[in-house]
Amino acid sequence: MHVLFADAPHLRILRLLRDEGPVSRAELGDRLELTRPRLLAEVERLVAAGLIAEAGMAASRGGRRSTLVEISPRLRFAAVDLGASSIDIEVTNGRLEPLAAYREPADIRTGPKVILQRVNELLSKARTDGAYERLDAVGIGVPGPVSFRDGVPVSPPIMPGWDRYPVRELLAREHGCPAVVDNDVNIMAIGERHGGVAHSVDDFLFVKIGTGIGCGIHLAGTVYRGVDGCAGDIGHIQVDASGPVCSCGNTGCLEALFSGAALARDALAAARAGDSPALAERLAASDGLSAKDVADGAAEGDVTCIRLIREGGRRVGGVLATLVSFANPSMIVIGGGLAQLGHVLLAEIRSVVYRRSLPLATGNLPVVLSELEGRAGVTGAAVLASDMAFEQAS
Amino acid sequence: MHVLFADAPHLRILRLLRDEGPVSRAELGDRLELTRPRLLAEVERLVAAGLIAEAGMAASRGGRRSTLVEISPRLRFAAVDLGASSIDIEVTNGRLEPLAAYREPADIRTGPKVILQRVNELLSKARTDGAYERLDAVGIGVPGPVSFRDGVPVSPPIMPGWDRYPVRELLAREHGCPAVVDNDVNIMAIGERHGGVAHSVDDFLFVKIGTGIGCGIHLAGTVYRGVDGCAGDIGHIQVDASGPVCSCGNTGCLEALFSGAALARDALAAARAGDSPALAERLAASDGLSAKDVADGAAEGDVTCIRLIREGGRRVGGVLATLVSFANPSMIVIGGGLAQLGHVLLAEIRSVVYRRSLPLATGNLPVVLSELEGRAGVTGAAVLASDMAFEQAS
Repeated sequence: MHVLFADAPHLRILRLLRDEGPVSRAELGDRLELTRPRLLAEVERLVAAGLIAEAGMAASRGGRRSTLVEISPRLRFAAVDLGASSIDIEVTNGRLEPLAAYREPADIRTGPKVILQRVNELLSKARTDGAYERLDAVGIGVPGPVSFRDGVPVSPPIMPGWDRYPVRELLAREHGCPAVVDNDVNIMAIGERHGGVAHSVDDFLFVKIGTGIGCGIHLAGTVYRGVDGCAGDIGHIQVDASGPVCSCGNTGCLEALFSGAALARDALAAARAGDSPALAERLAASDGLSAKDVADGAAEGDVTCIRLIREGGRRVGGVLATLVSFANPSMIVIGGGLAQLGHVLLAEIRSVVYRRSLPLATGNLPVVLSELEGRAGVTGAAVLASDMAFEQAS
Repeated sequence: MHVLFADAPHLRILRLLRDEGPVSRAELGDRLELTRPRLLAEVERLVAAGLIAEAGMAASRGGRRSTLVEISPRLRFAAVDLGASSIDIEVTNGRLEPLAAYREPADIRTGPKVILQRVNELLSKARTDGAYERLDAVGIGVPGPVSFRDGVPVSPPIMPGWDRYPVRELLAREHGCPAVVDNDVNIMAIGERHGGVAHSVDDFLFVKIGTGIGCGIHLAGTVYRGVDGCAGDIGHIQVDASGPVCSCGNTGCLEALFSGAALARDALAAARAGDSPALAERLAASDGLSAKDVADGAAEGDVTCIRLIREGGRRVGGVLATLVSFANPSMIVIGGGLAQLGHVLLAEIRSVVYRRSLPLATGNLPVVLSELEGRAGVTGAAVLASDMAFEQAS
């Protein structure tokens, strides 16, 4: 109650047109509760700035026909999602529809020079391919904590060489437009809220289970990043004091017990111990095992594969039960590579969350899989980029 | 970045005068970045509404001397903090200074009719004692989840008969002024931010350890209450699957292992088992044991008392380490009755939090005791009441 959420009118106009397409001036005024003179002045200013454009006549509402406006068809945003082992890029128009998309493996540990050079090469390729002439903003997510204000990674554990590297500044200079840097899980949460299962949900947790585990925290309509930019870093919560040693040096961290790497390790042990025919067969046919082998084995009914998934779900569920009691969100979205483990994983997470959290907090709490899957990150990066461009237009 | 925090000018003026005392018009304009005509119009309106008053001439700043304004000396707020076993009431002036204060034992389980009648009797007494003629707002905290929007308790576990009882409506009608209802831990967090150790801190957790355990979550400058009003209800987080059965029906909840009630139970067992001379002596001299007996025993160096406190601190610390990794706050404040266990408790909590949370999140994280102690709740209730009165004045 101490706060009024009062975004400036031009931001509200631009976001509405970005998210919904052409709208008449009359409807814009009604929906944003702006007086007609105020609305017309804002629209005129945004047309002059090249951010919105005329889009023909609206259907009649009885009186004089109103003209449609739309987000400028000339706007272009670059969205980059850096994972531990991949680069995803989309170039979008002003409505965030992809005009070009690239995805390739890349090891984040090769450092910022190599990775950002490759990002710029892929963006050059997009230009050559005709996706854009000039960019209006770049949004990028990285797999580690970020100082959102400074636009730099901060002490990122799996990104050697990236600590306080001026990612935002270099991208902005290279492309001559605003740039914005955020944590990869935060952009996935933003993406899921823009175009996925959390559409328009104000308070939810986006839990990414992939190489590591992280949580995007969306509260009161906005991402909460914490005072050091590491809010949601739940992978190193201790869940078993006698568990395995984690890469962070502590013992029994959540992601040491369940993550892409942990699951591959446990699958290998099970195959070698003769506990799982499905995994042994897959191991014989290749060099190693991955989470996908476990998912496939479970789909075939292999008991050990199902057990591995359920044990992992129980671990994640235990942590989420705590977070639900703490944060009382209205939805939990599960994404990341291990979301491919699907409904066996989901059922176990739900079972623990519903049993262990406060009944009042779970009475109406969906726990669901991401709808955007691999595209959540780039979608969120495009949203952030466009917001940045819109804000700088004021 | 999606949000501009833009409180209305009249709210900013009223809060500044409430919190800092008389200020000149010139300084008000500078500090709130309001143009002189805008400021003068707002001040004139607030004087006419009886919310602020002239307060003489300011010291010269070189040019024409500016006149001071202050929060109206006629304003009166009632602040009520209902605990599981107590009623605390203060009546304050517009600067939230107490003019009358009452504290007495009361069992919340006797139900809303009895408790609210007693609240009204104490407020009548304050009027008879000359603390006020009429109230401008009432703020009340209750020991359970609250729908802040509806002004009612919601499924409060230790408050039989209070579920959806129209607390706000009845208080507002009785006193002919706005009323506001919140959870007791939330008002303690608000109080600590207003006048305690968390002064002006935007992101912190206030952990109350008393009869039960709860957490006030203050993020981005405001209390976060969750979608059902039960955010921060951390007492029922499971910390030991093989632990004792909790009043909620689950096993191994944090507050079943460490809280006022749990500590009294463990102290009694230790005294009877002959493990603690200090506790045995105190038990012989009275009917039972309380947290205070354990605190006193620890102060005398009784090993069992110290062990009980340290074990409790370890439990609380483990949960807080998880919450720190999740929320990345800038401070943790420990309050409630068991804060009297003091530095033995605090040292153990700190040790676990600093060891188990992410280093980035604890690099600059104070874990401190409440400064307001028993007054945190009524202080926060007075802040809420005044905010409500100020908002309704718009």
